[in-house]
Amino acid sequence: MIPNLTPDVALAERLFEELRAATHDGVGITREAYGPGERKAHQIVRAAADAAGLETRADPAGNLLMTLPGSDRAAKRVVLGSHLDSVRSGGNFDGAAGVLAGLAAVAGMKRAGFVPGRDVTVVAVRAEEAGAWFPVSYPGSRAALGLLKPEELKIRRMDSGRSLGEHMREEGFDPGFVEGGGRTFSAGDTAAFLELHIEQGPVLDAEGVPVGIVSGIPGSRRLRAARVLGEYNHSGATPRKYRRDAAIALAELAHRVDERWALLEAQGHVLVCTFCVLATTEEAGFTKIAGEARFQLDVRSVNPHSVDALMETLYEIVPEIEARRGVKFELGNETSSRAAPMDAAIQAGLTRAAEALGIRHKLMASGGGHDAAAFVQAGIPAGMLFVRNQNGSHNPNEAMRMADFAAACAVVTSWAAEAAQ
Amino acid sequence: MIPNLTPDVALAERLFEELRAATHDGVGITREAYGPGERKAHQIVRAAADAAGLETRADPAGNLLMTLPGSDRAAKRVVLGSHLDSVRSGGNFDGAAGVLAGLAAVAGMKRAGFVPGRDVTVVAVRAEEAGAWFPVSYPGSRAALGLLKPEELKIRRMDSGRSLGEHMREEGFDPGFVEGGGRTFSAGDTAAFLELHIEQGPVLDAEGVPVGIVSGIPGSRRLRAARVLGEYNHSGATPRKYRRDAAIALAELAHRVDERWALLEAQGHVLVCTFCVLATTEEAGFTKIAGEARFQLDVRSVNPHSVDALMETLYEIVPEIEARRGVKFELGNETSSRAAPMDAAIQAGLTRAAEALGIRHKLMASGGGHDAAAFVQAGIPAGMLFVRNQNGSHNPNEAMRMADFAAACAVVTSWAAEAAQ
Repeated sequence: MIPNLTPDVALAERLFEELRAATHDGVGITREAYGPGERKAHQIVRAAADAAGLETRADPAGNLLMTLPGSDRAAKRVVLGSHLDSVRSGGNFDGAAGVLAGLAAVAGMKRAGFVPGRDVTVVAVRAEEAGAWFPVSYPGSRAALGLLKPEELKIRRMDSGRSLGEHMREEGFDPGFVEGGGRTFSAGDTAAFLELHIEQGPVLDAEGVPVGIVSGIPGSRRLRAARVLGEYNHSGATPRKYRRDAAIALAELAHRVDERWALLEAQGHVLVCTFCVLATTEEAGFTKIAGEARFQLDVRSVNPHSVDALMETLYEIVPEIEARRGVKFELGNETSSRAAPMDAAIQAGLTRAAEALGIRHKLMASGGGHDAAAFVQAGIPAGMLFVRNQNGSHNPNEAMRMADFAAACAVVTSWAAEAAQ
Repeated sequence: MIPNLTPDVALAERLFEELRAATHDGVGITREAYGPGERKAHQIVRAAADAAGLETRADPAGNLLMTLPGSDRAAKRVVLGSHLDSVRSGGNFDGAAGVLAGLAAVAGMKRAGFVPGRDVTVVAVRAEEAGAWFPVSYPGSRAALGLLKPEELKIRRMDSGRSLGEHMREEGFDPGFVEGGGRTFSAGDTAAFLELHIEQGPVLDAEGVPVGIVSGIPGSRRLRAARVLGEYNHSGATPRKYRRDAAIALAELAHRVDERWALLEAQGHVLVCTFCVLATTEEAGFTKIAGEARFQLDVRSVNPHSVDALMETLYEIVPEIEARRGVKFELGNETSSRAAPMDAAIQAGLTRAAEALGIRHKLMASGGGHDAAAFVQAGIPAGMLFVRNQNGSHNPNEAMRMADFAAACAVVTSWAAEAAQ
């Protein structure tokens, strides 16, 4: 432990207020990826970093780097951070908390006159909210890590219809960097990445624990456009044996898959399984047997065997229901993502730091995906720290207590000072 | 059996063609209740009845009566018929087949010089298609039977927004008849009502039987606007025990109710159970746990105990799922209708007639509701004869083979001649 090293939480708190004032849309917070809201957020944060005496620069993809120089500038750096974009009418903390925690940590180091052995860089990543803007995972951090494929620059922002490359260019950045295979961070120059984030789920709040130490980011197998096809028929005049009822076929599938999930959980598997959409179509109506229904399925676990065990059940049940109920499932493309385990040494370091500070903590898997997964993919040891939050995420009621944030910032600061020695 | 008495099927066939030509909308058949399509159909049929030498008149509600006088005009009459309206872009046979079968029967009697002992009246009822025009059961036949309540005249046609009373008046009829408690048919003046109708379901076609003798019209218990309320949450970040998943709660309910249906059927119950709509709402989407889902349930049986047995299961399962899954069901109003058993003597008479004619037949429950239910409600013995049809009903592909119709007309004629002796 480095004595007297405390994060500048007051700076972070002031910046949360500035960000909220600049990007509140009347309902919630909107910081469009590669758009006005994200641009304003980067301006505010960069100005604060400049004022704090950090070295600031944006990489060609627009990711903002704010560096406290270390004594050995050639040594692998330690990176802290997260993203500054938000979903439309979301909350102020998802993403921003990780950037401001990083800033609080390095500002605290600078205030204490602490010179790390290596550079500590806070990064504000671009465009993390894939569900809201660009339907692609982590384009900002993947561009910084040399993992974004040039063809992904053509992916269109869902609201504007313009491509990722065009949006980058409009904001003054250079998509040619991606095409040219450029990199901002690599395993050769980066020792570790630590991302603080609000939990997004209810676990820490329900269990009365302020800080979560993340074991990994789950992998997934997903059906985004699955259908069941049966036959529309008169609900009164069609006996059971003549039915091809798409609604009840889907209900059976969902219920049996859910029962399998409960069983796997009882056997010690840790996973989640969600039928996000489960619906007869517009043609359905009273006195009709449904001839079609559609669904979306999202299965996630840090352990790929758990995901596979559930999906195997699904693929076993489907033909059985088809045969018995005279329906046809069209599952569509299955998409998947690989799990990203957090670095064991970083988990241990975060645990030591929390314990030394007397902060209650809990080891837990992440539910959602985060930029840290891209760093893992690039071979950079990564860790994540969750902060207890209320009211979920991606909505205007998203909340986080400053005391919890301060506790988590203390862990970040302590860990980063050690890691950068 | 009365010898040499055959229905005038050629007349019916010609009228089917005239009806089709007059009311085809480019896609299917549209005969709006108390509107232009139904009006044209009544004109065509009335002109044919006049030409056949029948006594014709419309009652004050617009129901068309076409009578072959009997030798005792004071004796209770025998009534044959069905409705002439159709759903929008429906088929040519639903309803019309029953009216034209009646006409074929009495025209055949007249052609043969057969004078029945009592009047035989063919009725073309108004406005039977409740789901398409006026959201009320059988307003035409119930007006004729003194069962329509004056306040039901205020019910608005779903497309025009104008009331049933206004539509009656626009077509030249007198809603004051309903307000004054008038009746066209009663148990005191009507011996029996026989309605021929296409089956609307697949049973006769699947089993290779041309004619069904109907045991009864089912009663129902229905939920038209039921909901499940849970909580929207992040599908990745919310472990099973913290979920309040409306979609999976509904899937469980539907699947378990369906399993109970299968069990009741195995025990000998005859009923149908349909989740017509089963759907997460617009707010549902990928990476979200559904916070709301809605459904419609339609349970029918000629035997009310079978309907009740299924609904009891539903009301038992609901609180159990609520407690286990943290959701709340809002079932909304339950609506119900009483079953209308067909008269046993009429069923026996139809069976004797079919057997004497060598026509294969099957005793079966109706799936949908029909005007015959209103006659039962008024205390008039009623029967129904189903004709095998293809492609269901209420759609432009609805089909019926003329050979099957002719077989059914022979049964109607034979039965009516006996019943009117």
